[in-house]
Amino acid sequence: MNEATECSIEVTRGGVPESRHRVHVAVVDAEGRLRAGAGDPDLITFFRSAAKPLQALPLVEDGAYDRYGLTPEELALCCGSHSGSADHTGVATRILEKAAVTSDALACGPHPPFDDDARRKLEEAHLEPGRLHNNCSGKHAGMMMLARAHGWEPAEYHRPEHPVQRRLLAEVSRWTRMPEEAIALATDGCGVPCFALPLRQMALSFAAFAAAVRAGERSPTVVFEAMTTHPEMVAGEGRICTELMRQAAGRLFAKVGAEGVYCVGVPGAELGIALKVEDGAARAVAPAILGVLRELDLISEDDYGALHHHAYPELLNTRGEPVGQIRPAIALQAPDA
Amino acid sequence: MNEATECSIEVTRGGVPESRHRVHVAVVDAEGRLRAGAGDPDLITFFRSAAKPLQALPLVEDGAYDRYGLTPEELALCCGSHSGSADHTGVATRILEKAAVTSDALACGPHPPFDDDARRKLEEAHLEPGRLHNNCSGKHAGMMMLARAHGWEPAEYHRPEHPVQRRLLAEVSRWTRMPEEAIALATDGCGVPCFALPLRQMALSFAAFAAAVRAGERSPTVVFEAMTTHPEMVAGEGRICTELMRQAAGRLFAKVGAEGVYCVGVPGAELGIALKVEDGAARAVAPAILGVLRELDLISEDDYGALHHHAYPELLNTRGEPVGQIRPAIALQAPDA
Repeated sequence: MNEATECSIEVTRGGVPESRHRVHVAVVDAEGRLRAGAGDPDLITFFRSAAKPLQALPLVEDGAYDRYGLTPEELALCCGSHSGSADHTGVATRILEKAAVTSDALACGPHPPFDDDARRKLEEAHLEPGRLHNNCSGKHAGMMMLARAHGWEPAEYHRPEHPVQRRLLAEVSRWTRMPEEAIALATDGCGVPCFALPLRQMALSFAAFAAAVRAGERSPTVVFEAMTTHPEMVAGEGRICTELMRQAAGRLFAKVGAEGVYCVGVPGAELGIALKVEDGAARAVAPAILGVLRELDLISEDDYGALHHHAYPELLNTRGEPVGQIRPAIALQAPDA
Repeated sequence: MNEATECSIEVTRGGVPESRHRVHVAVVDAEGRLRAGAGDPDLITFFRSAAKPLQALPLVEDGAYDRYGLTPEELALCCGSHSGSADHTGVATRILEKAAVTSDALACGPHPPFDDDARRKLEEAHLEPGRLHNNCSGKHAGMMMLARAHGWEPAEYHRPEHPVQRRLLAEVSRWTRMPEEAIALATDGCGVPCFALPLRQMALSFAAFAAAVRAGERSPTVVFEAMTTHPEMVAGEGRICTELMRQAAGRLFAKVGAEGVYCVGVPGAELGIALKVEDGAARAVAPAILGVLRELDLISEDDYGALHHHAYPELLNTRGEPVGQIRPAIALQAPDA
């Protein structure tokens, strides 16, 4: 495959192309074979929050899920980049209670909730957003629960040298088949380590995860069922992860990452998909993953139609007039023999 | 010049490249010769608000500036995408008074002001932003003043068929040397027509404008002096147009456009520059134009140093920690002979 196999997301105004987002894609099977791609499937970038389903596996694997009576809804929030709605912060609070810590222990910084209602309520009450509203607060609560299960002191759990982060790096290494020392670490938006590795290895980890679900392995199955039964905990109303998993009804699991990353695992096909919008634009992510899934025939025309507002978002101006559209222009190629 | 001459803006995290913005550049002289470029200098995209200095010329040329006693500060706001600060909305109100209309007549829709103070004050008072806060309200006020000067009914001044918009299209056509019928129109964020044309023609218009300033032609000189004497009206405190023109102290005029467009005219060199961040990202624009200006030696090392925070913005996470940087990687090439 060469760089010429590009796919992109077009932004048009009055029908005229105005801007363009290039997309790199790797579609990989559980043996690590590249089955399709576009752009540079070996592009190295950060996994960001798309790694969360892998980071949730030790909660089940290491016994915290059973010992502290975590619910599927709570586990789904640990895999999520939630919208900070009252439902989300409520579930995060319950995880913290089970981990025997308070929200003051969260290392993630505050940011305004994505959820319109929650944001408006804070503004009207002249309240600042808190750490619970951080879209990663479920993951952070899960990290402290993992520390508790292992008897590790939770303080400074966000630092790369803390045993929680060492454990999570080992898990990411295991599923991506990347040696730990080959994964570059940097600091994520929420303060914990994030992982740089080739898109192809991200796709492999989702393929291997999907194959493990198909084979009935317990930890991946518990995480998969949590995410697909409670997709509203993985993102929030109106957002692509939630609506895609709801529409796909258990046929796939899906997770966005910041800076234009998206990963999907499909148990039935034992395939993993990882894509990166080269420039990191959030607006191109949903059109890109939906275009790729449709191109691969991994979602039906009906499902694609139901998600049309995510694949072809309309752009409105300050007068509320439709002035343009975002649309996928996806062409995948099989790799060279 | 071929597509291989690319320049880009890198976004790094912990020193590792995470995202990349490709940039197309045209550097043109007043005779329309391409003097340097990158990517596709003939890329067709929308001029957006970078056309505002051209759109302000008829205010002077057609007599409104003199007849209604417009001040340089007010004229600069007509060329601006302002931050909606109290100073900006105050100046916009004075233009409207001179045009004998009220802010209800503005066709632009409301959006929250970019200015932090102005936005916070509205939120604290539970007030919605108004049309005056729209970054284009100065341009719109100027459009109604142009209508008044010609004796045209200002109602529906935002529609493409209104004589105001016909007059502005003629002016854009004149400076870009593009026949009117070759300029595709669409609706801008503020509801008025915007113009699709090749980057090279946008650069030519700024070069021709710059040469006219050097030659002492009145209308371009009045607009140039308004912008460079009142750069705070063209954008706002902390923003690139304002800080670049303040630093350059009358050696150039500069205007951003939405979706990653930036244009600069340099009277002393009779050069025009137009660039487009391919994906439209606002965060890449200042690093791109500063990198291009430095590469062309059109700003000094001292000026570049003073604008370092715009050329190499630091990225902070929700904890306020520096986690990455945006940085220009600019390589311009002279065109093939």
